[in-house]
Amino acid sequence: MSSSAANASGAFAALWRPRLDEALLDLISGLPQGRLREACAYGLLGPGKRLRPLLVLASCEAAGGEPGVAMAAACAVEAVHAFSLVHDDLPCMDDDDERRGRPTVHVVHGEATALLAGDALLALGLGSLAAAGGAWAARASACLAEATWAGLVPGQVLDLEARDTVGPPDLETIHRLKTGRLMEAACLLGGFAAEADAARLDVLAEYGRELGLAFQLADDLLDDDADPASWVAVHGREATRKAGEAAVARAVAAAVTLGSSVLEAFAVGAFHRRV
Amino acid sequence: MSSSAANASGAFAALWRPRLDEALLDLISGLPQGRLREACAYGLLGPGKRLRPLLVLASCEAAGGEPGVAMAAACAVEAVHAFSLVHDDLPCMDDDDERRGRPTVHVVHGEATALLAGDALLALGLGSLAAAGGAWAARASACLAEATWAGLVPGQVLDLEARDTVGPPDLETIHRLKTGRLMEAACLLGGFAAEADAARLDVLAEYGRELGLAFQLADDLLDDDADPASWVAVHGREATRKAGEAAVARAVAAAVTLGSSVLEAFAVGAFHRRV
Repeated sequence: MSSSAANASGAFAALWRPRLDEALLDLISGLPQGRLREACAYGLLGPGKRLRPLLVLASCEAAGGEPGVAMAAACAVEAVHAFSLVHDDLPCMDDDDERRGRPTVHVVHGEATALLAGDALLALGLGSLAAAGGAWAARASACLAEATWAGLVPGQVLDLEARDTVGPPDLETIHRLKTGRLMEAACLLGGFAAEADAARLDVLAEYGRELGLAFQLADDLLDDDADPASWVAVHGREATRKAGEAAVARAVAAAVTLGSSVLEAFAVGAFHRRV
Repeated sequence: MSSSAANASGAFAALWRPRLDEALLDLISGLPQGRLREACAYGLLGPGKRLRPLLVLASCEAAGGEPGVAMAAACAVEAVHAFSLVHDDLPCMDDDDERRGRPTVHVVHGEATALLAGDALLALGLGSLAAAGGAWAARASACLAEATWAGLVPGQVLDLEARDTVGPPDLETIHRLKTGRLMEAACLLGGFAAEADAARLDVLAEYGRELGLAFQLADDLLDDDADPASWVAVHGREATRKAGEAAVARAVAAAVTLGSSVLEAFAVGAFHRRV
């Protein structure tokens, strides 16, 4: 990656991240005051890279649109991402006490409120996008919903099943469902907002899928736990690194086709990272 | 209620219930085969009155539309209702082992799968409606989402809080949120599908809210448990019966304004029932 590309993605994130956080705060302002809104705010607005919503905005720009047009879609994708984290961390799922260096939502607000906060974030994400107006909003909301019921949720089911099964899990399928489908939807939503044609949408989708795989493989390399459902545990570190580099190369090729140095830099950064 | 109105609602349900069950089966056919789809089918397709989706279809007819036009909306409302039941029954919430005379979803399929099945049903409901096409679909999906994040979910939060609080809970608010908002949305969605004007939508919304309150009060009268968050426990049986009769009267008045003997019969039947 050229240093100008890296600079482009840094400048893009610096410009849009504050506007994004403001819009995310606005998204939950309609919830009744009290513990539900507090739990949603905690799950949605904490520290984090905001990679998925930035991908929405950058994909909109790559498809010729003004990034701000896709802000409702960016917030919706982040809300759905936050929902999936809150539910995945619950005791009956991964039972994680900590995320991003903080106690998880159910540790702070209790299990029942965490469950309900996840439900509210999913409904808020899909509903606010459907209500965003514009001819593309219904299509975008349906696409994001499908990434949930056909991607995030079945991916988590396979992930849980892999722990009870003897023999190597189908990690590529799990990663593509759990991470890839939402990254793909993020990029497609940016394209929808820019009213991109079918050919450009195909390239955006390919970019999102490959970036998602690279991102998940980087997670596996960074994770010190011996999670049996990780690429590193099954294939070893060297093979994981090679698979990640190959996915990044495919994502970069798609970004070059789109002529977006910002997307190029996001793809490289999604794999070569320390957190 | 005249016996002809009662016959009208019975004939309406007999005609549409089989088509509805077929459409609900179709709704979950896109889920990957396996335990997720089985758990969704168990939660969505079991015994039940199908009151909410029948309300969607009857409201569409009352607003001058052909009921079948609203079938996607009817399925979406039932999916969201099923999601809320599956999550409300979970151990960290109401911890119910039985519903409609059968073991609950988490008893049969485990807690993690039940949580994920609820998530999938919510996403399927909202997403399928957004994808249903027609100018009204985005508005309908946003309305149903709002009934979730501003109704079902905050209502459940208040319900849980009421158990930890000394003093009488605000039951009318809990009932209107937990039950009324989804009934209101069901009737509005039928109106959207029929492209009803604003005045007619207002009457449909009023009808749904009052029917929802009557339905919940009937539940409280039928429930033998001494749930502290029940109208009967707080106000006594006689006051509950009076409040229910008054809500039915308001719903019937709205149905008469709409000229719908089917909606009139549904309102009476929602309160005067044995199950």
